[in-house]
Amino acid sequence: MKVVTMGEMMIRFMPKGNLRIEQATEFEAYYGGDEAIVAASLSKFGIDSRYITKLPYNPLGEIALAKLREQGIDTKFIARGGKRLGLNFYENGASVRPSYVLYDRKNSAISEAVPSDFDFDAIFCDADWFHVSGITPAISDNAAELVKIAMQTAKKYNVTVSVDLNYRSKLWSIEKAQSVMIPLMEYVDVCIGGAEDAEKVLGYKNPNIVLGGDEHDIEAYKEVFKGLKEKFSLKYIASTLRESHSASDNSWAALLYDGNEFYHTKKYKIHLVDRGGGGASFSAALIYGILNGFDIAKTGEFAVAASALKQTIMGDFNLTTKEETERLMGGDASGRVQR
Amino acid sequence: MKVVTMGEMMIRFMPKGNLRIEQATEFEAYYGGDEAIVAASLSKFGIDSRYITKLPYNPLGEIALAKLREQGIDTKFIARGGKRLGLNFYENGASVRPSYVLYDRKNSAISEAVPSDFDFDAIFCDADWFHVSGITPAISDNAAELVKIAMQTAKKYNVTVSVDLNYRSKLWSIEKAQSVMIPLMEYVDVCIGGAEDAEKVLGYKNPNIVLGGDEHDIEAYKEVFKGLKEKFSLKYIASTLRESHSASDNSWAALLYDGNEFYHTKKYKIHLVDRGGGGASFSAALIYGILNGFDIAKTGEFAVAASALKQTIMGDFNLTTKEETERLMGGDASGRVQR
Amino acid sequence: MKVVTMGEMMIRFMPKGNLRIEQATEFEAYYGGDEAIVAASLSKFGIDSRYITKLPYNPLGEIALAKLREQGIDTKFIARGGKRLGLNFYENGASVRPSYVLYDRKNSAISEAVPSDFDFDAIFCDADWFHVSGITPAISDNAAELVKIAMQTAKKYNVTVSVDLNYRSKLWSIEKAQSVMIPLMEYVDVCIGGAEDAEKVLGYKNPNIVLGGDEHDIEAYKEVFKGLKEKFSLKYIASTLRESHSASDNSWAALLYDGNEFYHTKKYKIHLVDRGGGGASFSAALIYGILNGFDIAKTGEFAVAASALKQTIMGDFNLTTKEETERLMGGDASGRVQR
Amino acid sequence: MKVVTMGEMMIRFMPKGNLRIEQATEFEAYYGGDEAIVAASLSKFGIDSRYITKLPYNPLGEIALAKLREQGIDTKFIARGGKRLGLNFYENGASVRPSYVLYDRKNSAISEAVPSDFDFDAIFCDADWFHVSGITPAISDNAAELVKIAMQTAKKYNVTVSVDLNYRSKLWSIEKAQSVMIPLMEYVDVCIGGAEDAEKVLGYKNPNIVLGGDEHDIEAYKEVFKGLKEKFSLKYIASTLRESHSASDNSWAALLYDGNEFYHTKKYKIHLVDRGGGGASFSAALIYGILNGFDIAKTGEFAVAASALKQTIMGDFNLTTKEETERLMGGDASGRVQR
Amino acid sequence: MKVVTMGEMMIRFMPKGNLRIEQATEFEAYYGGDEAIVAASLSKFGIDSRYITKLPYNPLGEIALAKLREQGIDTKFIARGGKRLGLNFYENGASVRPSYVLYDRKNSAISEAVPSDFDFDAIFCDADWFHVSGITPAISDNAAELVKIAMQTAKKYNVTVSVDLNYRSKLWSIEKAQSVMIPLMEYVDVCIGGAEDAEKVLGYKNPNIVLGGDEHDIEAYKEVFKGLKEKFSLKYIASTLRESHSASDNSWAALLYDGNEFYHTKKYKIHLVDRGGGGASFSAALIYGILNGFDIAKTGEFAVAASALKQTIMGDFNLTTKEETERLMGGDASGRVQR
Amino acid sequence: MKVVTMGEMMIRFMPKGNLRIEQATEFEAYYGGDEAIVAASLSKFGIDSRYITKLPYNPLGEIALAKLREQGIDTKFIARGGKRLGLNFYENGASVRPSYVLYDRKNSAISEAVPSDFDFDAIFCDADWFHVSGITPAISDNAAELVKIAMQTAKKYNVTVSVDLNYRSKLWSIEKAQSVMIPLMEYVDVCIGGAEDAEKVLGYKNPNIVLGGDEHDIEAYKEVFKGLKEKFSLKYIASTLRESHSASDNSWAALLYDGNEFYHTKKYKIHLVDRGGGGASFSAALIYGILNGFDIAKTGEFAVAASALKQTIMGDFNLTTKEETERLMGGDASGRVQR
Repeated sequence: MKVVTMGEMMIRFMPKGNLRIEQATEFEAYYGGDEAIVAASLSKFGIDSRYITKLPYNPLGEIALAKLREQGIDTKFIARGGKRLGLNFYENGASVRPSYVLYDRKNSAISEAVPSDFDFDAIFCDADWFHVSGITPAISDNAAELVKIAMQTAKKYNVTVSVDLNYRSKLWSIEKAQSVMIPLMEYVDVCIGGAEDAEKVLGYKNPNIVLGGDEHDIEAYKEVFKGLKEKFSLKYIASTLRESHSASDNSWAALLYDGNEFYHTKKYKIHLVDRGGGGASFSAALIYGILNGFDIAKTGEFAVAASALKQTIMGDFNLTTKEETERLMGGDASGRVQR
Repeated sequence: MKVVTMGEMMIRFMPKGNLRIEQATEFEAYYGGDEAIVAASLSKFGIDSRYITKLPYNPLGEIALAKLREQGIDTKFIARGGKRLGLNFYENGASVRPSYVLYDRKNSAISEAVPSDFDFDAIFCDADWFHVSGITPAISDNAAELVKIAMQTAKKYNVTVSVDLNYRSKLWSIEKAQSVMIPLMEYVDVCIGGAEDAEKVLGYKNPNIVLGGDEHDIEAYKEVFKGLKEKFSLKYIASTLRESHSASDNSWAALLYDGNEFYHTKKYKIHLVDRGGGGASFSAALIYGILNGFDIAKTGEFAVAASALKQTIMGDFNLTTKEETERLMGGDASGRVQR
Repeated sequence: MKVVTMGEMMIRFMPKGNLRIEQATEFEAYYGGDEAIVAASLSKFGIDSRYITKLPYNPLGEIALAKLREQGIDTKFIARGGKRLGLNFYENGASVRPSYVLYDRKNSAISEAVPSDFDFDAIFCDADWFHVSGITPAISDNAAELVKIAMQTAKKYNVTVSVDLNYRSKLWSIEKAQSVMIPLMEYVDVCIGGAEDAEKVLGYKNPNIVLGGDEHDIEAYKEVFKGLKEKFSLKYIASTLRESHSASDNSWAALLYDGNEFYHTKKYKIHLVDRGGGGASFSAALIYGILNGFDIAKTGEFAVAASALKQTIMGDFNLTTKEETERLMGGDASGRVQR
Repeated sequence: MKVVTMGEMMIRFMPKGNLRIEQATEFEAYYGGDEAIVAASLSKFGIDSRYITKLPYNPLGEIALAKLREQGIDTKFIARGGKRLGLNFYENGASVRPSYVLYDRKNSAISEAVPSDFDFDAIFCDADWFHVSGITPAISDNAAELVKIAMQTAKKYNVTVSVDLNYRSKLWSIEKAQSVMIPLMEYVDVCIGGAEDAEKVLGYKNPNIVLGGDEHDIEAYKEVFKGLKEKFSLKYIASTLRESHSASDNSWAALLYDGNEFYHTKKYKIHLVDRGGGGASFSAALIYGILNGFDIAKTGEFAVAASALKQTIMGDFNLTTKEETERLMGGDASGRVQR
Repeated sequence: MKVVTMGEMMIRFMPKGNLRIEQATEFEAYYGGDEAIVAASLSKFGIDSRYITKLPYNPLGEIALAKLREQGIDTKFIARGGKRLGLNFYENGASVRPSYVLYDRKNSAISEAVPSDFDFDAIFCDADWFHVSGITPAISDNAAELVKIAMQTAKKYNVTVSVDLNYRSKLWSIEKAQSVMIPLMEYVDVCIGGAEDAEKVLGYKNPNIVLGGDEHDIEAYKEVFKGLKEKFSLKYIASTLRESHSASDNSWAALLYDGNEFYHTKKYKIHLVDRGGGGASFSAALIYGILNGFDIAKTGEFAVAASALKQTIMGDFNLTTKEETERLMGGDASGRVQR
Repeated sequence: MKVVTMGEMMIRFMPKGNLRIEQATEFEAYYGGDEAIVAASLSKFGIDSRYITKLPYNPLGEIALAKLREQGIDTKFIARGGKRLGLNFYENGASVRPSYVLYDRKNSAISEAVPSDFDFDAIFCDADWFHVSGITPAISDNAAELVKIAMQTAKKYNVTVSVDLNYRSKLWSIEKAQSVMIPLMEYVDVCIGGAEDAEKVLGYKNPNIVLGGDEHDIEAYKEVFKGLKEKFSLKYIASTLRESHSASDNSWAALLYDGNEFYHTKKYKIHLVDRGGGGASFSAALIYGILNGFDIAKTGEFAVAASALKQTIMGDFNLTTKEETERLMGGDASGRVQR
């Protein structure tokens, strides 16, 4: 089984511990990006994964490439060139102080990439699944065009397509997002995203959903999922359900819908180490479950456990194995020492 | 608007993370002192602030000065000379293990400063507010004399005077504290301090108050506040209300009294990063509220939110903006990532 | 009063903070081992303590020796030579992610030590107490033989003998453990261990005890203690009662039995800094209490408070004083700053 | 005396020690830029200095501002706004491995600033000296325009103007540099730069100078200086003379010409800590010497000693005092401990 | 072109900077091993490289694998299983204090590997070159047997075989070394090693060579090379020529012999960052030169420059590109900043 | 053999690497003091050593004690109590920038200690040697009195007395030094110090000696030594001969005189890691040589090699063994890796 993902890879500069950016005399450097995280997590679970992006010819581009290889990801279709690697500065909040991200990603190599940078047929001819987040088409018109071609090519080779809607207001307006994303939904089989993303990205509004809060009205969510399935002929819909008690403590669960059944997972209380990459880790584990034919309950519990574990790990990548995920989903959340 | 504060600046040496002093092979160095924190926080909120102290002619004195300039504080009336910069060693406790401070501040430059080190008229002629804590007069008779002259000069120029009682048993006895502080109250308009400080520093005892605990009997506090107002002709009284659940988790609220009304703020549960500077940050934000004509409720919520945020930030200074404080007092304590 | 302990000292390599082993570019090095921890904690409480092990002639052996001397432990009977110092890699878990230990201790100097490495008579002739954990006889047949000779010599000099059962499945099977440990119980006066250890190490099963969980059925425990006392003519039995809520938060209490009375201590909720050494710190404080003639309640509260404090301290050794322990057992768990 | 400088401030990300960029898991962050270094060094010497730039409204802009204030620089004319703060990645070479810089400074706030961002009359009306490097006009046409207006305004107020030619091939071509810089020379009084810069930036070629090497033909340099003086009516010309033996060891001297006399300074062998900022520190000390009426020899020795000291200090700013510089120029290069 | 190498991969624990092992509270972890370094360096130069070893199923084995993948090395024939990963503790000396290594590599997975762990035909059928050092057969009889089979299989597929003699007295005696290595020479085409290795490993003694010193008698070396060529029918012989002035400063050159011509390279003075991996980096660059048909002079200069650069880089791997090597061999050892 | 030393122990706070004090956000903490270094070095060489000082009852006093125990020093006669532990801030210079020390040692426990704090008879009755530096009597009149009593008691028990003159102008004037030290010389057998100390501390002037430089006129030194021997009836005189080429590179040798013969040792060029403790390490090794009956040449070479090694080691203590010293004095200064 081979999964292809496509997106932007960025360096994340983080002050140590809970320092504010203005206090930092040094920054830890992490490398990530939604689709790179999905590829890395799948590789860790034992699935062949291939990542598509464009990286500049400079030491930062080299590191990005090395970090992907380190995770066992197939990097041979990554284009090289362009101006720069995107980056961001991330301040890890604590308690009542929220985390904060400052993006500096304009003019990144992938945002200015063109279709001729990639051999789409070679990329997809031996693939089983293609995954992309809503961030990738948001970064530029060029990137949106690449996503469209990728999805079309995927479909040509009967590759399952999943999208994680993931609306980012800093990158595009609701209008722009809808104008790009709604046409792309024609190619999508599996949609990941909650009611808020559905409204902002796909223009699908449910009157019972109040945006912006942590109260997840499961029944309203189910109606949204049913509506999305109808409207976009989707096969599978899933959403994580985060409750943000503070910058240090969150709860984490998910709702899945396979067109027949709904499944609402167990909820984990997580004392956060690094919440970044939680959503992408969920996507990866969801894809893993579906690809392996897990039933909806096992898929949901696997995905929510894997992504809960991610949030106890520093850095973007979910350095969690299948075995660790299964131990947690099997009920052992006691944190007892594994000798 | 210009606020003047006066006190001692110290280096705080902290082992990394939760290490004990005896485990430390290296110490982080932070710079603070109650009144420097007040000046820094006000500067961050956009108020001109001027800090008065004496610093030795050596690299530690230079750093102290640079740290104040970095915060945008007016340092031009800071005296130079004297023997040494005071310092302390601070061990960050955790859970059932309390934090611990070892002071080594004897013979510091400010503790041996004399009135001729300062041009009090120049300091206060363009000021609106003068703030000092009860620590400054406690460090030495010299310093107590400086505080008295400062208050007198402030009054000469119609400058509002606030004091944060802050009794420190390591620095002086209850008897000594009262003999110095009670006469100073003649110049004070705004008094910050709880029932315990009122009893120890001002000799004002309320039989319903049990010292040393976390149970804050609000009604008894109100009686104390009323009594203090009468006795010392105060215009404003406020006290933070800390509940110490463990060295890692505290609750934080405040009670304010403007002579007419009482206001008991919202209570925050804080997972502490560094509780140091919480009280001084409250004073700064209280002064900000009063100077800006906020009503008592807005003043209280602003002050308690600002000082709650401080306790999620390493180091003495409250590196929090007005906007961040307003977001928290507006109700968003969810800690969601700010992108 | 002089306490002798005997065991293996190991280096523990830990990634910083909550990093996974695979993320670590550097490792903090801590030095410990159950019986070394007991000796160190007793020394800190003011008791003469002597530690018996074998350490290789290389820089790691030198450090191990220096770390023991640093704690004020009598090292003069430590044998030198052998192939290597045992080590382990310890990953500090967080929240739903458990901590993990990888042992690399085969062929360590102490595991291959022989009786002629030690002058047992000199070691025990002036001793009051001998303590060993069940880990020491588990590491090798050689070590088991050393434990047997040590216990026999201790008895010759009327030295009280305590054992902390501490079953480790990575080191030996249940059958092997019972074949070694049951005969040793003839020399034991004080036994530390819970129902699970009693079943696995001593073959003493109580049908009401369900192994592997956190629900501590106190009444069933009491029956186990009574049964053990009978079967092995023990004078004192004690067990810590850990509840593992997550890798970050545990509860901690203990049950003691002096042959007449049972005592069930106060329970502490601990936000863990480093749970390693909790059990050994309990043993040390228990020995301290009994040696000083504390009654069972004071002994129990002292032991559980001391070992709760340990778990808020990085590294293996319990760097807690008698005074700090007494303050906590006296009721002050508020974590307020000690100035 | 007041000196104004104008330019771009950047963050410099450096791997620790001698690590390559691709090895870095964390980066030290330093803040600099040629003209900010000049302003900081002059402030350290006791001269009022004012720095002109534009900084974005984000935490990086805030830090940049705070770092300038920390150095005692007047920041009140700094414009705010724009897209981003420029940055670079700097790898500290060693021995036969050269240092390496990767710039990522496109679209920085100052590069897109416009004349209306600054009140040039207010900036220069009370100034004595204006300094700028050739990097500032090179970053963009906007910046070149700002430099031109600044120089014109400076001249209006009889402010001495100095320029450090500092040709950067990554920023502009030789043709472009000459088309911008030659017209600016009309306003320049003091020119800092060697024969190579004279040829590339000012089109002034001397056939005896071989570009690119370390052999400094002093007689040829003198001819270049004489020629430049004639051609551009300069009052003072100076150039540092670096010999790069390896990435770890350099020699450092200077040649000065005041229109009458030449002065060739003492040569220092420097074991480099951080060579960055050496040239700018020379400029600052040269300005200091001329402003204070030092003769050419004292000016030269002061400037070369100050900038030699800089290269033993980490970070961009020359944290060296006048007294330290004088001690070194007085002949004590022994490095004996100062107690 | 594809190069196969085979050997042991180890973790190297290093105290920070120049700390002694006994001072270290934390250790940096580097991953290396002679043949892994050769594979990594060739991969960096753009050659397909494949590394053969056996790694345990534990996090250390996982990291080792990830570090190889990160370097772009083909890891698909690496066997998994066995007891442990070998490790060593390395103290970086300084000046008159030598560096020191403590090995703890007994019972490593590769030392206990057996022929059936590897599919030798698949490994070599598409290879062009096989390289191994004399360390690999020295670690165990099992490993020596693996080397023999590897060489035999290599020859079956007409693969060029190189060996770096690299005698290690801690691993085997001279007698044992000769009994294993001399028979292996039948398969060797390219031999890397100096006169001392020739004498100890191959029993080839030249009376003019005085072992143990830094004086390299080039004429005597040439005679040794001629003799070795005759005796073992070698095609190419090369040796690095290190002069150890102190633990901080070395000189570095090489002598090559292609059967016709000798070539004595330029000599570099190196201020060492990490001398580890210098020899293996020379081997890699030598193989690169021969594989690419460079003449003996270009091969020698390329190899000595690449390995000089290595010694300015922390860690085992030579993170140097072909372009950087060419710049240095082209004469630019000035260490000037590359912008 | 047992050596007693007496003096002040201090914490040394050092910025990391070559940072200036004003750049430091964290400080490494080292523990030392001349006589503690002597005791530690002798203990490392295998000699029983006993250290006399007074340490406060606080965590810093505890650490100081633990650091002494760690080195195997007998601490049982160390007095406890007093106000504080002395400290200093040390900036590690580089190249042309000198190192700098800021002392903050006033009112330290030992400076205010009184004779009744120590049982001098018990301290000296089983001792063979007593060593003290000229720093100890300089810190206070109290300390000078303690030194006098110590020397008198030492003489009572026929203990050899050595003194390292070590004049410190920050602590006392030349007049005061002479008034205290000259009378003490009556008890001294072995005097360590150069011509400059002889003049300043003992008032012994030689017209050929020019103070303050690095040129050591050996013949003039010999005359000084002869004169001192006569004047103070000394048995042994020795002086280190440091040449300070820069803050990074020194040369190091010594001159010894046993009353009959002079011996001028080999000279080492040292690339410094930490020059602190060089002199005290020389004293320790000199004492070791004399105590073991080495001849003057072996004593000299041992002492200069041991103290050269110290200067390649971070921190105050000379963590060098007898074997390492002998290897260096045997001629191996090549710094080759010890495997």
